[in-house]
Amino acid sequence: MDRVVRIGAAQLGPVARRDDRHEVVQRMVSLLDHAAEDGCDLVVFPELALTTFFPRWAMDDQEEIDSFFEAEMPGPATQALFTAAKRHGIGFCLGFAELVTDSGGAHRHYNTALLVDAETNEVGRYRKVHLPGHDEPEPWRPFQHLEKRYFDVGPDGFQTWRAFGGVVGMAICNDRRWPETYRVLALRGAEVVLIGYNTPVHNPPAPEHDALSDFHNHLVMQAGAYQNGMWVVGVAKAGDEEGVPMIGGTAIIAPSGEIVSQASTLGDELVVSDCDLDACASYRTTTFDFERHRRPEHYEIITTQRGSTPPD
Amino acid sequence: MDRVVRIGAAQLGPVARRDDRHEVVQRMVSLLDHAAEDGCDLVVFPELALTTFFPRWAMDDQEEIDSFFEAEMPGPATQALFTAAKRHGIGFCLGFAELVTDSGGAHRHYNTALLVDAETNEVGRYRKVHLPGHDEPEPWRPFQHLEKRYFDVGPDGFQTWRAFGGVVGMAICNDRRWPETYRVLALRGAEVVLIGYNTPVHNPPAPEHDALSDFHNHLVMQAGAYQNGMWVVGVAKAGDEEGVPMIGGTAIIAPSGEIVSQASTLGDELVVSDCDLDACASYRTTTFDFERHRRPEHYEIITTQRGSTPPD
Repeated sequence: MDRVVRIGAAQLGPVARRDDRHEVVQRMVSLLDHAAEDGCDLVVFPELALTTFFPRWAMDDQEEIDSFFEAEMPGPATQALFTAAKRHGIGFCLGFAELVTDSGGAHRHYNTALLVDAETNEVGRYRKVHLPGHDEPEPWRPFQHLEKRYFDVGPDGFQTWRAFGGVVGMAICNDRRWPETYRVLALRGAEVVLIGYNTPVHNPPAPEHDALSDFHNHLVMQAGAYQNGMWVVGVAKAGDEEGVPMIGGTAIIAPSGEIVSQASTLGDELVVSDCDLDACASYRTTTFDFERHRRPEHYEIITTQRGSTPPD
Repeated sequence: MDRVVRIGAAQLGPVARRDDRHEVVQRMVSLLDHAAEDGCDLVVFPELALTTFFPRWAMDDQEEIDSFFEAEMPGPATQALFTAAKRHGIGFCLGFAELVTDSGGAHRHYNTALLVDAETNEVGRYRKVHLPGHDEPEPWRPFQHLEKRYFDVGPDGFQTWRAFGGVVGMAICNDRRWPETYRVLALRGAEVVLIGYNTPVHNPPAPEHDALSDFHNHLVMQAGAYQNGMWVVGVAKAGDEEGVPMIGGTAIIAPSGEIVSQASTLGDELVVSDCDLDACASYRTTTFDFERHRRPEHYEIITTQRGSTPPD
């Protein structure tokens, strides 16, 4: 049985603070139309695709903060995306800020990715585990990175779902730098991992890394793909957003670790590849046959402690 | 305090089956002499440096197999290496096949790396955890990879030691493809990881990987360095050994993931870099501050199971 999924990685250029969600959704619908012409089965949008990357600002007013979140999905502004996708028969993965009200009326805030199938039925949602940045505003920074302030850590960890003829996992932005992300997903059978990101070129606490931002972005996703024998689709919100330049580098990466297609702009751009899920087996049944070669009895410290403990 | 360690990665060209250990040690002493001229503090030799890569042959005669192992270290042939190193005041890391006889007279066979300090006092030894290949001869292969047959899995896992002004870890060959290797070592504080390897260009079960052998070699070591903010020194036994071409690509990799020096031949060659152990902090106190950012509560499956279990 043919298990080739044609995936469109739908990079977005910057979204300004004043941009209306309807305008952003129109840009996404254009990319979906494009993807339909190209015969895509699945389109992947970036992290927090509907708004500007708001954790760059220190805000105290919870109502102002919540204005960047979606209390329903689809909602009034996003319905058009679901309608277009259903018309085209294309599934999609969408990153957005999710406001959840539990049965007791308490609010939870997640950095979320939603996956829907070609009928726009929900396949699953992933809530970001590795929140980067800080939780108290640091005035010395030219811009903030307050994800730890505005979001709760995803309580469900890394899950996988059967969809698009294979097994799909999701991760978000900073998750991609952590090898545990890919490994947990691969142990749960993922054959393709969908990852949206917003990555400023400049890292205020470590400006010495800035020149390496693009290199690091691809390095971690390529290693994650190869070491787990799976496809990785990395999708940027890119370009100069509110005066903060962000990397692009949207890429589709094969289980070999090779980038098979890549964005060449920092704007709205669709990158398409045929992803043969059967290509995973070449790695998973040989070099990375986990059952034959892994040695979990020697990995214990990975789960028993968080920080590093050098020898005496 | 200055924590710059000048490390020499001492790549070896092929070692033929008929080569006498004394000849090989003479080649290693030449590289040590070179390293002394270059002011090295530490020289790293490849995996199974003293002999040809014997797991490529199917052998049944245990005496023949044991002829590739060292029952003492230093022994008659390797004493010259220790003598030269002590004279120069250079520490070294040496890969060799280690035969251990326990108190009950039972034999254990390990693929081992030994680390000695500038006085040639033993710092520690590491016994390979991720043995690749197979344990039964497979006649269809042009050459075998019988590490699982000839070696026992290292019982002590990945350890670290204080030496050379920092914290040092070791890994061997196939270990470098597994992200758990670097992570366990980093959680034990490693600032530099020394890795010898013998990697045939051709992988009989997956010839479609052959063209990517060099790419994969660097990809995994660069990702391991960056994702853990540590130096990685990868050292090949390279070139055409008994008709089996092996990759070179000996490299010293910074905590940024950048290759800062690299071999340009497939023969005996010394690659030298000043490794500033304080450079690790730039990554470990920011993006990869484990204590602040890791989420072990979501990693459990990494240690609770060996193989992959896709969803229903």
